[in-house]
Amino acid sequence: MEKVYEGKAKIVYKTEDPDKYILYFKDTATAFDATKRAEVEGKGELNNNISSLIFQLLEERGIRTHFIRKLSSREMLVWRAKRFELEVVVRNISAGSLCKRLGIEEGKPLEKPLVEFFYKNDELHDPLVCYDHIILLGLLKEEQIHEIKHITFRVNEILREFFSQHGLILVDFKLEFGQLPDGSLAVVDEVSPDTCRLWDAKTGEKLDKDRFRFDLGDLLEGYRKVLEKLQG
Amino acid sequence: MEKVYEGKAKIVYKTEDPDKYILYFKDTATAFDATKRAEVEGKGELNNNISSLIFQLLEERGIRTHFIRKLSSREMLVWRAKRFELEVVVRNISAGSLCKRLGIEEGKPLEKPLVEFFYKNDELHDPLVCYDHIILLGLLKEEQIHEIKHITFRVNEILREFFSQHGLILVDFKLEFGQLPDGSLAVVDEVSPDTCRLWDAKTGEKLDKDRFRFDLGDLLEGYRKVLEKLQG
Repeated sequence: MEKVYEGKAKIVYKTEDPDKYILYFKDTATAFDATKRAEVEGKGELNNNISSLIFQLLEERGIRTHFIRKLSSREMLVWRAKRFELEVVVRNISAGSLCKRLGIEEGKPLEKPLVEFFYKNDELHDPLVCYDHIILLGLLKEEQIHEIKHITFRVNEILREFFSQHGLILVDFKLEFGQLPDGSLAVVDEVSPDTCRLWDAKTGEKLDKDRFRFDLGDLLEGYRKVLEKLQG
Repeated sequence: MEKVYEGKAKIVYKTEDPDKYILYFKDTATAFDATKRAEVEGKGELNNNISSLIFQLLEERGIRTHFIRKLSSREMLVWRAKRFELEVVVRNISAGSLCKRLGIEEGKPLEKPLVEFFYKNDELHDPLVCYDHIILLGLLKEEQIHEIKHITFRVNEILREFFSQHGLILVDFKLEFGQLPDGSLAVVDEVSPDTCRLWDAKTGEKLDKDRFRFDLGDLLEGYRKVLEKLQG
């Protein structure tokens, strides 16, 4: 298969259909601008399972995504998308870079969900951008910012409810957006414990990539618990 | 005189009138989170002169400031103000942290002035904050953000024109805001080559604190040129 792009956690391959790509989920775990890195056998499979499950849910709820179907344990068939160079972060509870950046204590429920945009640029270490920066950099048009914020809030509602029904607290998560071949805006990339902070609703145990970031316990065990809860 | 507060470049003293303070302009120059620091004899006097001149201009044009009058070479009489923990930066041409943060070339005129807010917090290194962060941190109320943005754009228009008439390009500048004893919103702190990037319109020579930051030439000489031009 011809490689289109290789990222830290996934590889994108072409298919015979120019409008369809294959996402291959690697076992590589990275954190802190990829200064921390490890191979975790089984992570790719778990993230493909969890992402497929979530994309399916979002599609059922009327959110356009790049997801077509799960192809194999590590492969997902997706629509080709022109990605925006942005990461959209939604926060329900304070954690991670928000706390570090603004000196806020971790675990504080936010009065309303907070949406942040980061310019996806490794060299610049993905800086925070506000509305006017997004326009200045030409990353999105005004109406696209509004549409993406709108979709993001909606996805947050759907996922919060879904995770909550399965005993998980959705602390925050990152979305990426792109334009599908038919021009429509869609959620792309993945939605997994690599990109969501998920806490066990009963015990408060962290089941996401923070386990790897801060050596809180076996990464795979956390991701496995997430998948089991979602399937249970 | 009783000290109220001592900052990097100024000291605030009480007066007999509880509503009035004295700003004393020090000769200390600092940059890069005060990791670079020097005593520059004469800087305090120049900044007091330039700031007084600019505050007077702003007052004449209907912008409320904390300025009452220049008291002596290094002292300015001001209204007591409850400062907001924010720095408001306006940019007409790309320079400084904007370029570093977003990978933009220096000296690029911006299509329209860009306003940025920074959370004034030494420990956190004055992080950039967007609209929702300002609300989350309780730094300003919604209507105050709008009012401050409005005043800031107006100040930018006034100062751009004024500097331009005196052979100077206003690249960017920082404003601070506070509430006066009568409750009104006002521009506080100082407006000087410590807080404005000013380039000679003919030669492009940098006449502001970048001289100190990047060892581009004698600091005082630049500030003196600014004052001479504004008085000429």
